[in-house]
Amino acid sequence: MKELIHPTEKGKEIFNLIERLYPITRSITGNGVRETLAIVSEHIPLVIHEVPSGTKILDWEVPLEWNITDAWIKNSKGEKIIDFKTLNLHVLNYSIPVHKKINLEELKEHLFTLPESPDWVPYRTSYHNKIWGFCMSHNQFKSLKDEEYEVMINATLEDGSLSYGEFYIKGELEDEVLITTHVCHPSLANDNLSGIAVSAFIADTLRKIKSKYSYRFLFIPATVGSIAWLSLNEDKIDKIKYGLILALLGDEGKFNYKKSRRDTAVIDKIVAHCLKTRNEAYGVLDFSPYGYDERQFCSPGYNLPVGRLSRSIHGEFPEYHTSADNLDFVKPEKLEESFEFLRSIFQTIEGNQTYLNLNPKGEPQLGRRGLFKKIGGHSTAKDFQMALLWILNLSDGENSLLDIAIKSKFDFELIRKAADSLIETNLLQEIV
Amino acid sequence: MKELIHPTEKGKEIFNLIERLYPITRSITGNGVRETLAIVSEHIPLVIHEVPSGTKILDWEVPLEWNITDAWIKNSKGEKIIDFKTLNLHVLNYSIPVHKKINLEELKEHLFTLPESPDWVPYRTSYHNKIWGFCMSHNQFKSLKDEEYEVMINATLEDGSLSYGEFYIKGELEDEVLITTHVCHPSLANDNLSGIAVSAFIADTLRKIKSKYSYRFLFIPATVGSIAWLSLNEDKIDKIKYGLILALLGDEGKFNYKKSRRDTAVIDKIVAHCLKTRNEAYGVLDFSPYGYDERQFCSPGYNLPVGRLSRSIHGEFPEYHTSADNLDFVKPEKLEESFEFLRSIFQTIEGNQTYLNLNPKGEPQLGRRGLFKKIGGHSTAKDFQMALLWILNLSDGENSLLDIAIKSKFDFELIRKAADSLIETNLLQEIV
Amino acid sequence: MKELIHPTEKGKEIFNLIERLYPITRSITGNGVRETLAIVSEHIPLVIHEVPSGTKILDWEVPLEWNITDAWIKNSKGEKIIDFKTLNLHVLNYSIPVHKKINLEELKEHLFTLPESPDWVPYRTSYHNKIWGFCMSHNQFKSLKDEEYEVMINATLEDGSLSYGEFYIKGELEDEVLITTHVCHPSLANDNLSGIAVSAFIADTLRKIKSKYSYRFLFIPATVGSIAWLSLNEDKIDKIKYGLILALLGDEGKFNYKKSRRDTAVIDKIVAHCLKTRNEAYGVLDFSPYGYDERQFCSPGYNLPVGRLSRSIHGEFPEYHTSADNLDFVKPEKLEESFEFLRSIFQTIEGNQTYLNLNPKGEPQLGRRGLFKKIGGHSTAKDFQMALLWILNLSDGENSLLDIAIKSKFDFELIRKAADSLIETNLLQEIV
Repeated sequence: MKELIHPTEKGKEIFNLIERLYPITRSITGNGVRETLAIVSEHIPLVIHEVPSGTKILDWEVPLEWNITDAWIKNSKGEKIIDFKTLNLHVLNYSIPVHKKINLEELKEHLFTLPESPDWVPYRTSYHNKIWGFCMSHNQFKSLKDEEYEVMINATLEDGSLSYGEFYIKGELEDEVLITTHVCHPSLANDNLSGIAVSAFIADTLRKIKSKYSYRFLFIPATVGSIAWLSLNEDKIDKIKYGLILALLGDEGKFNYKKSRRDTAVIDKIVAHCLKTRNEAYGVLDFSPYGYDERQFCSPGYNLPVGRLSRSIHGEFPEYHTSADNLDFVKPEKLEESFEFLRSIFQTIEGNQTYLNLNPKGEPQLGRRGLFKKIGGHSTAKDFQMALLWILNLSDGENSLLDIAIKSKFDFELIRKAADSLIETNLLQEIV
Repeated sequence: MKELIHPTEKGKEIFNLIERLYPITRSITGNGVRETLAIVSEHIPLVIHEVPSGTKILDWEVPLEWNITDAWIKNSKGEKIIDFKTLNLHVLNYSIPVHKKINLEELKEHLFTLPESPDWVPYRTSYHNKIWGFCMSHNQFKSLKDEEYEVMINATLEDGSLSYGEFYIKGELEDEVLITTHVCHPSLANDNLSGIAVSAFIADTLRKIKSKYSYRFLFIPATVGSIAWLSLNEDKIDKIKYGLILALLGDEGKFNYKKSRRDTAVIDKIVAHCLKTRNEAYGVLDFSPYGYDERQFCSPGYNLPVGRLSRSIHGEFPEYHTSADNLDFVKPEKLEESFEFLRSIFQTIEGNQTYLNLNPKGEPQLGRRGLFKKIGGHSTAKDFQMALLWILNLSDGENSLLDIAIKSKFDFELIRKAADSLIETNLLQEIV
Repeated sequence: MKELIHPTEKGKEIFNLIERLYPITRSITGNGVRETLAIVSEHIPLVIHEVPSGTKILDWEVPLEWNITDAWIKNSKGEKIIDFKTLNLHVLNYSIPVHKKINLEELKEHLFTLPESPDWVPYRTSYHNKIWGFCMSHNQFKSLKDEEYEVMINATLEDGSLSYGEFYIKGELEDEVLITTHVCHPSLANDNLSGIAVSAFIADTLRKIKSKYSYRFLFIPATVGSIAWLSLNEDKIDKIKYGLILALLGDEGKFNYKKSRRDTAVIDKIVAHCLKTRNEAYGVLDFSPYGYDERQFCSPGYNLPVGRLSRSIHGEFPEYHTSADNLDFVKPEKLEESFEFLRSIFQTIEGNQTYLNLNPKGEPQLGRRGLFKKIGGHSTAKDFQMALLWILNLSDGENSLLDIAIKSKFDFELIRKAADSLIETNLLQEIV
């Protein structure tokens, strides 16, 4: 798989979805999430769930629903120096409402800035501590005069519900592949409109094929969304055999895969192998109990085989959680690359299988079966022929095709193709 | 073991055997193999087996026997431009007979050359595809004129048999060490007259000692020879506890050991340790299902503890399978070094054993037993004394002398010698 | 833990004890050991054991007791050219008595020097070979004239006893931590007055706290002392859960920990982790059957979880076993650092425990329990908060706090502190 220079139609379509979703004010609850899910539903038939405020979910409870219509700060001349309608990051997410006149000193206690990137507006939240606040660039902050300001946040924090979207594709097996992505961030393009849009397009691709596994896509607010789903779906958890948390898939960074808590789950081996055989820079990170919803899916009481795929890593690039994570920061060609890479992962999940070599003593005579080159003595065997030999040698019941791909260092696709040739010539039998 | 600069008599004798065998036209069947085995029989009393063409051997069958007496290409003036009698590599091995006049265009379809080494003649075979052909230097190929040629190959491909040689040395135990080497290549000195000659001399050495293990030497055509032997000797396979495939032992490259499919068989540990303690460059390669007869002995239905010892690796040096693999390419001193190194491997196989420290609580008082230096306080203990301590400390029933040599990083010979001292002083007991 | 530049009172106190012990002539038996133990008893209430000469101890027997009052060499003018009273290293330790006139040639057979450090006097012993001898600088040796010399060693080698000190601190559990240090070297400051003095101060610290584990300190002559203790205390051996041999703790080298024979005992993991989180250079060495009393405690019949902590390694620094290992060679600040580092090891032993996360499904809501920061969206979580998450995630019954510290790479102290917060909020339960 080569680095894409020009995106094809697919990359542009994914980017277009991000563009539509970008202006919406999302949070962990509220109408912004509903609006987002409605737009995603134009691509795949999402089931929308609403979990009422106050519902007990594991150790937590569903919070009050937050909605906001307007917010600003006016200076003493009545000029809006901060306007929520131009950038929703300006309001501390989950702010309580406020409307009053205050002096600079008091205002400053409610302002959040990023001194290290003084032109950018930070993204900040206060879900559990009921306060109000504004975010602004540090340069603007420094220019504030000692005068009277009028602050207004027209927000509500009331009984309502937490919304999330779910899309289930029934496969041949009840065993599931779980894909989740967080939908709770406002105007941040990479974090996580990229995850939402790529998930939607991958789901749309998968529902059009006949798959071996069932696939479940969750579009959920981070933390409280996964906790809600886990709490309400205890009966489905045992079916999850593979899982991926998708986020930050549109920037120009290399792929970074964070392993599941199990460390050697099949999904961990699959993604690491797919990354390795791409022949481009990548990272594989050990599990740690911080990050996105792997914190919940990989908590010790579940310990699910769920890893996380991103390009750049949250918190490790300067644009993270700032106004600079905008539409310029995500690239159609990178979105497409993420989409294609995910497709190769799902192809590996679908194609992996363990076979038994039916002719285990010595090599079978491949030439007679039309599977081997005709002139001997050459110094190198071709990849396909080597793949045949690897599969025959390792198909003793202990090694899946994935294991064979890893040991032989060939990409899974070649191993799968060679296995198909051996099945056709009755040299391999599937182990059920 | 130091790098040998001048070979002793042994190196010259091994080289002399190669010189005698070099001109013979060998293939996977035919009189060339028989002639080769007859000459080897002057060194060790080989049993010669003949397996008739058509015999079913595992998934294969013994091919028709190929013999050739003459071959040439004449140009339009009747001059021999290619003459099999000057170099048997000129004929595609297993060519069907031919005698006709053809134009250059048709001739070219039957010619094999090596553009990357334009002075050398390649070695090519076509065992399974019944065609005829010639091999020549690429420079000669480029100089061919567009004229009429006469081609003649006086070969037969008929019912006959596959020949191989076997030499069995009865040891104290029925457990066997298997050593195999391929005998099917024509005038190629390193590949594999070096393997044949070194094997013959090692076998001759081993038959003159009283060994613990039984040793079985096979001089076989590659692939079809090992398949024949495996097919006809199912009852002997369980006795094979160690095995080595020997090939390419005369060139100037470092030793390369390819591990058995088991990866951690005792033979794998022995050879790796013997290589490491030589203090010279070496390679240890993971198993892969390509190469020489490890493809058969290490197929999943057998999975024998058989590794492969070579100097340079097949396919990885330019002279491989070309006319440049001639008598100049193999060196008496390197043959002797290979012979000596193999001897150290067999000494390790013979000397390895697990013992129990009979005085496991605290150190035994070695001084009283004459096993320790007399003046204390020196900063370093001598190697022999350290070896004593390692053996005593690790002889808990879990570690063989080989394991102790590996952990202590001492060479096996020293460990064996120190163990003998401890046995003499009744501090160790053999575990049966 | 930062490099100490100026020692505090503790470092000076440890050094003062070394200064007092330095002039005493110690050996594996004799009054020098008794005098040493008596001085240590001023710090901690040692029990002094006397094991009579000839007592069978494992494979050994307690040697005759050696005492010495004076020794010298006089030249032909009657001038003392070597005087034991100025440096006790001048006498070969365990020399038999002698008093006679001899020529230079004969004298030389009884002299030990260090040609590679010609100004220093070596330390040499001859416990098992009954000879007499002197040690001198190589420069002095070279200046000896060919004249008559008078040699005198007023020593006794008689029935007596082997002395060692033992100090036992009863903890909550009968499970023991064993700390041993060798007391048999004469005027060598680092080897091993540093070990004796640091052990005494650590023991004094431990006896003043209420500990979970019981602690046993042994002040023993090397080899024969540990063999005697092991032989006489078979009933206590099973209680030893952790152990450290302490030696060479005052020089300026980095810490070097030698692992127990078990290689992965908890003590091995504890010391390696404590070393790693100090953020200074250190070494961790594999077990080998040479060195100090690990040779006995880690013999296969005991195989105790006993490692060894030193700064520089015996035999690997030029001053080792020479007159240059004097009071200038040990530094108060390094002694204090060793003391503090040992304290962190014992704190880890004491604080290590396995807990069960009582809320294993998803993360517990830490904010509500006052355990989490209030403003979200920041790019980094603080160490303490990360420690909470690591503990919750890994407290599945399989991981101790030590394991969690190792996996999270946090120092044990932070993990212990975070665990305490989780216990207070009823999120963790101790596994008994």
